[in-house]
Amino acid sequence: MLQSKIINLTVRDVRFPTSLEQHGSDAMLAINVLDSQHTDPDYSVAYVVLETDSDATLKGYGLTFTIGRGTEIVVCAVKALSTLVVGKTLKEIVSDFRSFYRLLSSDGQMRWIGPEKGVIQLAIAAILNAVWDLWARVEGKDPAKLVSCIDFRYITDALTEQEALEEQMLKEGYPAYTTSCAWLGYSNQQLTQLCSDALAQGWTKFKVKVGADLQDDIHRCSLIRKLIGPNNALMIDANQRWDVNEAITWVTKLAEFHPLWIEEPTCPDDILGHASISKALAPLGIGVATGEQCHNRVMFKQFLQASALQFVQIDSCRVGSVNENLAIILMAAKFNVPVCPHAGGVGLCELVQHLILFDYISVSASLNNRMCEYVDHLHEHFKSPTIIRNAHYMPPEDPGYSCEMLEESVQKHQYPQGEVWRAIEKQGIL
Amino acid sequence: MLQSKIINLTVRDVRFPTSLEQHGSDAMLAINVLDSQHTDPDYSVAYVVLETDSDATLKGYGLTFTIGRGTEIVVCAVKALSTLVVGKTLKEIVSDFRSFYRLLSSDGQMRWIGPEKGVIQLAIAAILNAVWDLWARVEGKDPAKLVSCIDFRYITDALTEQEALEEQMLKEGYPAYTTSCAWLGYSNQQLTQLCSDALAQGWTKFKVKVGADLQDDIHRCSLIRKLIGPNNALMIDANQRWDVNEAITWVTKLAEFHPLWIEEPTCPDDILGHASISKALAPLGIGVATGEQCHNRVMFKQFLQASALQFVQIDSCRVGSVNENLAIILMAAKFNVPVCPHAGGVGLCELVQHLILFDYISVSASLNNRMCEYVDHLHEHFKSPTIIRNAHYMPPEDPGYSCEMLEESVQKHQYPQGEVWRAIEKQGIL
Repeated sequence: MLQSKIINLTVRDVRFPTSLEQHGSDAMLAINVLDSQHTDPDYSVAYVVLETDSDATLKGYGLTFTIGRGTEIVVCAVKALSTLVVGKTLKEIVSDFRSFYRLLSSDGQMRWIGPEKGVIQLAIAAILNAVWDLWARVEGKDPAKLVSCIDFRYITDALTEQEALEEQMLKEGYPAYTTSCAWLGYSNQQLTQLCSDALAQGWTKFKVKVGADLQDDIHRCSLIRKLIGPNNALMIDANQRWDVNEAITWVTKLAEFHPLWIEEPTCPDDILGHASISKALAPLGIGVATGEQCHNRVMFKQFLQASALQFVQIDSCRVGSVNENLAIILMAAKFNVPVCPHAGGVGLCELVQHLILFDYISVSASLNNRMCEYVDHLHEHFKSPTIIRNAHYMPPEDPGYSCEMLEESVQKHQYPQGEVWRAIEKQGIL
Repeated sequence: MLQSKIINLTVRDVRFPTSLEQHGSDAMLAINVLDSQHTDPDYSVAYVVLETDSDATLKGYGLTFTIGRGTEIVVCAVKALSTLVVGKTLKEIVSDFRSFYRLLSSDGQMRWIGPEKGVIQLAIAAILNAVWDLWARVEGKDPAKLVSCIDFRYITDALTEQEALEEQMLKEGYPAYTTSCAWLGYSNQQLTQLCSDALAQGWTKFKVKVGADLQDDIHRCSLIRKLIGPNNALMIDANQRWDVNEAITWVTKLAEFHPLWIEEPTCPDDILGHASISKALAPLGIGVATGEQCHNRVMFKQFLQASALQFVQIDSCRVGSVNENLAIILMAAKFNVPVCPHAGGVGLCELVQHLILFDYISVSASLNNRMCEYVDHLHEHFKSPTIIRNAHYMPPEDPGYSCEMLEESVQKHQYPQGEVWRAIEKQGIL
């Protein structure tokens, strides 16, 4: 089956009108309300399907996450890159996967409009996610298992107890944290209700959005800390809102609520800025977390070299798929920094769960200060959605990379021609 | 005229089949032969024209430079951003230009696919270059003069002798260096001929491509140094070819030829890597130059903070036009690092000459270790092409940002429907 040739690549612009839900009456549906940088996201994907010459049912599914306008640009980039994929057999690709990765990331002409960043990197992620999915289906495994078969530098010392760790994951799952309880702008009553519900469901780690108004942040952090008690974990997330010194001043004033980390305190490109913030906050016991907009392994390398983060937040679509995330996971292990992936959006939880299982079973073998983000929305559009049990990600059961969407969902939400968007246009809502 | 409203934005994919010329018989036409990262560039632009409601002749022309495949992705991004521009008056834009810049760079949905990097940043540059061109035409000035009217932080101490400096520029021009004499793969005879011709034309600063083969580099640098003598400047350019330690070892072996700088020794994102290289090469009197692929002001800030470069190579299209390049020029002045722009390609010389004049007249007031790249090709497609006299850029005479192309050239080279590309397709050459 490795001889299967990829004979077609389709890419579709699929958007969910989540910005509408900000104004809905049900707070549980609210998505990223008042994230200071992305105020009206329509959670979207550029959705890739690879067809093979083997049989009509063997396909590879991949995606990259976007938030509405501009998805068509990523779709355009996927189309431009598709000529590098179509016509190749899976064997040609995976027998020298590094060269294939470089073929995509270093095309002599397209490299100029990256390199290895922004739109072109998101497009590469969508394609490679589909290739990994296809390979995993052919092998009847998930990508985590595939990569753990490979002989990697750095990790041989951690490969001892793999089977036991795998057993443990199958039984207990990987710890998750929730971002759904404490968006900006929630009332006391909403916060209390959502936190109580989450505690009852077994959640022990909570992320709070901050950065719009200091007094409001103090109020919310105080309330949540009281609700969850001193032993549960509280993390705060500023979504790149501050300049460097402002971040230090602001977070210092929230130190009394003992946040484990401050996430994205400033510009995601500012390695030295994050290093200054890390240094200033270390005596307060607060770490810096970033990565969801860190565009490649060279940036992560520097964040690690400069002690500019204490939590590595890999993303399954921002960098070049499994290939590049492996490099990042291995570097994080070498620098002894825990990996705590970014997820949510559309399909990010489905994808990244594979990476975090690989990290635990084959690299870190530790759960200390490690957890994976979880947001409970839009999973219903996937064929094998994430399974959460007692606030843990349960290992995926089906072979593949878990981002095959329901064809009906895709067609309904295709932009702009799907029925959901036709109805919205008709009603003149957006 | 500031009341002019922008009523339409057109963007076209214009490509020059320069990759063909690599195989031509005339070495002077050869473009970027064997640049290790971009082996077959078709020099291209996403070409933007803004139309106004004032009169049919008042238009703004802008572009961003690309190298072939993928230009259509940038065109797609310009179209996506155009809704933020069309309908605005020039006055609305320039009376609060910073907010307009942020509107483009921080659109709540499109920001995700950058932010401020890659395709979306190149598209912003094309649009803002056109806005600056339009504004300058309305005011009857060039952008350099426009910005020197503004009250900037940092520069008041350097604003004294502006008139004298301006006079000097009008008389002598701004020093340029040439990249055309020593591409990889040239024969001894070609190198000797090209260098002798350039010396005869008054060139005193020469850039040599290196990084493919050390013995070949030693041979070429030795030959060129002999040809140009000990007092002319020699710079070397590796086009991101090496890892950090490899760069140090390699360049150390070329130190005997006294290069002023090594350009792009490694990954353009690797600030800390450039800092290590800078530190290692400083005792040899060799500086590090980079910037043509440095994607925004925050990256340049860190390069300066980390003493990771000794020459700032701004690019007129990689970052957000004049707006962002001003921030970079001012930071460079604060850190006392000379600005030596990247140019060449299509239109980059035409654009960046304005910025370098601004730097000299209003900010640095120094020519010490300062020069602007020049490559002599494709200027014939511009309405007001760069004027070089005695190896100096002469100040542009026409109002505007100098990137209006000849309509005939644009139509001929539009991809894929222009006659040049139709002919190439017919002949089956590419």
